[in-house]
Amino acid sequence: MDLAITNVLALTMRDDRLGILEDATIGIDDGRLAYVGSSDSFDDEAERTIDGDGRVATPGLVNVHAHTDLTLLRGGAQDVPEIEWMNHALGPLSAAMEPEDRVAGARLGVLEALRSGVTTVGEYAHDVERLVDEAHEPMGVRTVATETINAVDGPTDDLGPDEPYPLSEEQGWSGLERNEALFDACADRERVSALYGPQALDMVPQELLEEIRERAERHDRGIHMHVAQGEREQRQIEARYGTGETTVSVLEELELVSDRLLAAHLHGATNEERARLADAGVRMAANPSSIAAIDGITPPIVEYRNSRGIAGIGTDQAPGPGGHDFLRELRTTALLAKTKRTDPTAFPAWEALRVGTIEGARALGIDEEVGSLEEGKRADLVLFDLGHPSTAPVVSEPLHTAVPNLVYGANGGVVDTVLIEGEVVLEGGELRTADEGEILEEATERATDVFARAGDAWRDADSELVGAVEGGRL
Amino acid sequence: MDLAITNVLALTMRDDRLGILEDATIGIDDGRLAYVGSSDSFDDEAERTIDGDGRVATPGLVNVHAHTDLTLLRGGAQDVPEIEWMNHALGPLSAAMEPEDRVAGARLGVLEALRSGVTTVGEYAHDVERLVDEAHEPMGVRTVATETINAVDGPTDDLGPDEPYPLSEEQGWSGLERNEALFDACADRERVSALYGPQALDMVPQELLEEIRERAERHDRGIHMHVAQGEREQRQIEARYGTGETTVSVLEELELVSDRLLAAHLHGATNEERARLADAGVRMAANPSSIAAIDGITPPIVEYRNSRGIAGIGTDQAPGPGGHDFLRELRTTALLAKTKRTDPTAFPAWEALRVGTIEGARALGIDEEVGSLEEGKRADLVLFDLGHPSTAPVVSEPLHTAVPNLVYGANGGVVDTVLIEGEVVLEGGELRTADEGEILEEATERATDVFARAGDAWRDADSELVGAVEGGRL
Repeated sequence: MDLAITNVLALTMRDDRLGILEDATIGIDDGRLAYVGSSDSFDDEAERTIDGDGRVATPGLVNVHAHTDLTLLRGGAQDVPEIEWMNHALGPLSAAMEPEDRVAGARLGVLEALRSGVTTVGEYAHDVERLVDEAHEPMGVRTVATETINAVDGPTDDLGPDEPYPLSEEQGWSGLERNEALFDACADRERVSALYGPQALDMVPQELLEEIRERAERHDRGIHMHVAQGEREQRQIEARYGTGETTVSVLEELELVSDRLLAAHLHGATNEERARLADAGVRMAANPSSIAAIDGITPPIVEYRNSRGIAGIGTDQAPGPGGHDFLRELRTTALLAKTKRTDPTAFPAWEALRVGTIEGARALGIDEEVGSLEEGKRADLVLFDLGHPSTAPVVSEPLHTAVPNLVYGANGGVVDTVLIEGEVVLEGGELRTADEGEILEEATERATDVFARAGDAWRDADSELVGAVEGGRL
Repeated sequence: MDLAITNVLALTMRDDRLGILEDATIGIDDGRLAYVGSSDSFDDEAERTIDGDGRVATPGLVNVHAHTDLTLLRGGAQDVPEIEWMNHALGPLSAAMEPEDRVAGARLGVLEALRSGVTTVGEYAHDVERLVDEAHEPMGVRTVATETINAVDGPTDDLGPDEPYPLSEEQGWSGLERNEALFDACADRERVSALYGPQALDMVPQELLEEIRERAERHDRGIHMHVAQGEREQRQIEARYGTGETTVSVLEELELVSDRLLAAHLHGATNEERARLADAGVRMAANPSSIAAIDGITPPIVEYRNSRGIAGIGTDQAPGPGGHDFLRELRTTALLAKTKRTDPTAFPAWEALRVGTIEGARALGIDEEVGSLEEGKRADLVLFDLGHPSTAPVVSEPLHTAVPNLVYGANGGVVDTVLIEGEVVLEGGELRTADEGEILEEATERATDVFARAGDAWRDADSELVGAVEGGRL
């Protein structure tokens, strides 16, 4: 056996509970979990042993939806009306990014994610293959990569609210070509898999969507799509598909509503529509901090789960919610759920940990491989040191305070070790697969240039942030 | 001059803006700010110089309302119905705490607060003087201490919802005696001041409240009180003061509504009542994470400020919201405010930073001494190193991303140096005034004992958490 972690408190997520094992040993061989059980019954020998005494082990956290390249623009777009966020605040900055800037942003985002215990990122980006090649894979994180297919051609800013976006067939099909190349490139990789990425119903022509659905069925592949993001999308759908149609009704007509679909957001759908999606096996990617920051909305993850829908959590992008710390995202999900429902029992700590691990893996369709600590699964796991000012004290009687303290207390610095596919990616809180200092330095240099290049366009776009700068508040 | 911090990006909070100074120097002499201005114009000599290049300086953060002793019980009470939280979940654990346990909890809570950039804690506790003597003061944090005066005598659990709590005059008056002793003990201390602490209108006899008001006026002192905490309190008020009365109406009749009053929570008051309180100069202590976690409610801090009321933010207690990280509390305040109002512009980053510093100081009545970086004020300040995976990149053009990244991004590890009264309390992220390892170890040992002693009573109280433990979820 390659590695044994002994005497650890393991939250295995087996069955439908936390699967708490005290004094557990976790044995790893050839990248897979070879033993998960009591330390007493463990009689194998391991080449290396990590003493897990005083630590807590969980399956690696699964971030189902993120645009990590935009981490370079952290702080560039927030506190503005929803209608301004994309086109007036983020847009001018994003337009100034070169491909190398996106790689630098992704490396920063993946660094932040790994440091918070994430072992799988559901990355969604334009030319995602390059990000995977230069950021995710060398840094060791497992990635479910989605290539953005977006046919919107030219600015949409000056359009009336009911004028359909100009779509370029060519642009859309070239996105699909990149997406196919991504599938080819992922075919033999252990830690990378791919999904189709039609950006959203209002941004892709119908014919292309039908082609994607057909190919997904033919090759047994998944589709990851932003669905029902709000008023603006709804108006586009009515303009293109007819009054009374909604994103969900059109997706149903196009036979895209199935268990192949991972739908991000869903806050623009009705309860009834969401129940239909849940029934059909559509998986939800909820991004609570992001949607709270950008739209002032708490996404309906509790409601979706109450309809027996499968749902995971994502951090979306740094500008707005602030970053990719996934433990913080679990806490935010819980507090937003409680206040939305005026119910302090909503989304309790144990549920947060399950949604952050095994349910996230189900949402990404990889739960047979990861998401719980079970023999035979891939060895993606986190060792937390909760003897930290934000999480101590940890007691085991009469309840395991480790469970709530991980979700509500943990604030940086509690992730000690991260294993992915059995590889030690983080140890003693330090990244082993890349140079953290270099990542930070390059991100800062590139961001300084991007923001400088974008400066005039950003000011011309005249979001409320421009006034805040002039007013000495930003 | 004792100390100069050079070439720093300073958010001074002067006037009604952030008072942003680039390339600033901050000079400190004899515990006070002796120079705040451009590095170019600084021509004094300092015994010690800290190079602030790449750092951000703000006034020390002000946590207006906290019960840090309960940090020992972190993880012991959350995810339960509001009606269970105090009596069925927290109560049995709290009852098992000895005074030494409370000190250990306070030390842990103050440690967590300091590491998040807090320089002033509005501590509220029974026998708070002991906590101040053994935790706050030796650790160096500025403290506005409130002694709990609570006359409720015996269990209130079995009472019908409209039966008034049994109040003990003697217990109430002995609380007031401790409170007076606290004022005496604080008379000559630089970093400690005191407030009267009648716990809440339903927990103190009318005559005692009138005595407190009279003494507060006579000695020009403030009063810190939990006000309008919800349904249970409202029923007590009607049972004792008559149908139709509310906490606010009774406080008005008792002439307690004035600028002497710091009122925690206020979510049980009406908008109209809150507007009257704001008009009268009552200051609000909002505890967003705590009230979200325990009640599923977003406290009305934005509404109170919109009524031109003075408001600060507190972290309340660790069980429930998880801890005393104040930067995280600013982020949580903002996200909860945005979703409550479906308005992504609510409580923007610049407002969070002002409320976390100068407005918090106003709420505690110490804004002439601290809360902004201005010559003559006491030298309470924080140096942040935002070259961190959760806050990088920091750019200054065309906007200062340091502002949103401090509020939305920062996640542990960004607080480099904390000065209080000119003393270096934290440096390089390390506590200088106490041994962090000892604090963590003692808290864990004592918590283990407290939870063990409380175990049977906790199980007998039969909150939903007991079922969660039996169900393998906690």
